[in-house]
Amino acid sequence: MGPGHGATETGIQNATDLGNRIAGEGWVLLTGGRNVGVMEAASMGAQQVGGLTIGILPFEKTNGMSQYVDIPICTGMGSARNNINVLSSDVIVACGSGAGTTSEIMLTLKASKPLVLLDPSPKLVSFLKELSYPEPKMAQSPEQAISHIKKFL
Amino acid sequence: MGPGHGATETGIQNATDLGNRIAGEGWVLLTGGRNVGVMEAASMGAQQVGGLTIGILPFEKTNGMSQYVDIPICTGMGSARNNINVLSSDVIVACGSGAGTTSEIMLTLKASKPLVLLDPSPKLVSFLKELSYPEPKMAQSPEQAISHIKKFL
Amino acid sequence: MGPGHGATETGIQNATDLGNRIAGEGWVLLTGGRNVGVMEAASMGAQQVGGLTIGILPFEKTNGMSQYVDIPICTGMGSARNNINVLSSDVIVACGSGAGTTSEIMLTLKASKPLVLLDPSPKLVSFLKELSYPEPKMAQSPEQAISHIKKFL
Amino acid sequence: MGPGHGATETGIQNATDLGNRIAGEGWVLLTGGRNVGVMEAASMGAQQVGGLTIGILPFEKTNGMSQYVDIPICTGMGSARNNINVLSSDVIVACGSGAGTTSEIMLTLKASKPLVLLDPSPKLVSFLKELSYPEPKMAQSPEQAISHIKKFL
Repeated sequence: MGPGHGATETGIQNATDLGNRIAGEGWVLLTGGRNVGVMEAASMGAQQVGGLTIGILPFEKTNGMSQYVDIPICTGMGSARNNINVLSSDVIVACGSGAGTTSEIMLTLKASKPLVLLDPSPKLVSFLKELSYPEPKMAQSPEQAISHIKKFL
Repeated sequence: MGPGHGATETGIQNATDLGNRIAGEGWVLLTGGRNVGVMEAASMGAQQVGGLTIGILPFEKTNGMSQYVDIPICTGMGSARNNINVLSSDVIVACGSGAGTTSEIMLTLKASKPLVLLDPSPKLVSFLKELSYPEPKMAQSPEQAISHIKKFL
Repeated sequence: MGPGHGATETGIQNATDLGNRIAGEGWVLLTGGRNVGVMEAASMGAQQVGGLTIGILPFEKTNGMSQYVDIPICTGMGSARNNINVLSSDVIVACGSGAGTTSEIMLTLKASKPLVLLDPSPKLVSFLKELSYPEPKMAQSPEQAISHIKKFL
Repeated sequence: MGPGHGATETGIQNATDLGNRIAGEGWVLLTGGRNVGVMEAASMGAQQVGGLTIGILPFEKTNGMSQYVDIPICTGMGSARNNINVLSSDVIVACGSGAGTTSEIMLTLKASKPLVLLDPSPKLVSFLKELSYPEPKMAQSPEQAISHIKKFL
């Protein structure tokens, strides 16, 4: 999970690398499916090495979909689809910290699902420590994120 | 799309055969993902010949999921997920005519998506003729359903 | 529940009268909230006599909302909101039989909720008899629909 | 919007007072509808002075609903209903900062809707300043929250 238009350069690079590694492990990549930012970069990274990519789209049709999505799921329910992203993932990796991504982080905590934060904003981490939920795993690199995911599986 | 517990013997046989043929064409099979009736039979039929199967589950978790689903999407939204089934499919094939399946037939008409009815109830067909929508394609066999699908793609 | 653009003259008249009577009984009216057809007519009928009207809109905003809706609920989830209409009503009255309305009839059966069909298509009734669900109550007039509702409450 | 089980004493007091004032202004109160925490307190506060209260429930039925909710909307879609809370409100007031509430704050930013934070966590405020969205209005008391709401209407 990660920002669309608001993604940073580092976020994009991390997402591409992470998508690469996820596919390399033989895992399926699930993103929000749009043709921007972290979603696009992760899907591209996974497809480059032959991975399977799912996109849970907010739209009723596939307009605005990343060309690197193999399997589009058209929810037609806007940002409410963020909860489906969370519920359908075995492990959630948040790569960046825009508003949508942070909503997914919060929904992950609500759903008690495994959560890895890749290169998170220190201020978000500081806020998360206040919440009465198990602390997410922190990763400084895609490699470290993969290592955390493996422990969850 | 088709009934769960209410599926008939013929419905189950048709679904298995149809799943088989869908996978044989190299298409991805999307169902409601539960471990009963037409959903289970179609997914089994597709997996038997190496097809890829998606299950759009009504639940928050994978309990009640068919063992023949490769990719579970957990919506946690009950029967409201029927609309996602419809929006995410390139062509919808209704195999049987329980209440849930008929809701999906109606949502398919609303969404103006291609619709094939496999061995439908004559009374449902008679009612559908009254509605101000293009008539769905009728198929008496899985083979005929595949032939209709091909015309839509 | 009832059709939007596809509503008949009789459907509109029945809906207005029914909205009137629902408000007269002191009940709250819940519709799909759009500014067309049965939804609009029922809401108008209820507001005319001081009733409270809820509209469960398919949109993210209140554009396309009936002016007779007091309380808009913006779901932003298109036709998937039909399930919320059903789940949030104590009794569902279907007034007409378009595709959307029929999807709500089917979702009502799935949810095992009380259902009244006002002046239904005989062909729909004939099909419903095939389904393995308790038969809905049939009403030929708004007055008779109210009488059925009272038995459910 | 505010936490359920995780609500603080101050949060509960603020919510009750705010509910009171919202009803006093003649506005309709919309909450998540459950019988705990800020939702329950705000609904109670509003009903005490004759206000109208809506509850957008995560469940399919009204179990777990606050007794102070006049109009339950049963979504049956779990935490995905948070987006409906946001889309259906003219102004969103977040009272506290649990995971669910923070998801609603983020969805409010995504939807570009007016947002007031009542007695927010300083760490959350500090994180929000990083996001590329207009800063929410901050209120230290229910009275101040009402004053902000008025400017939005």
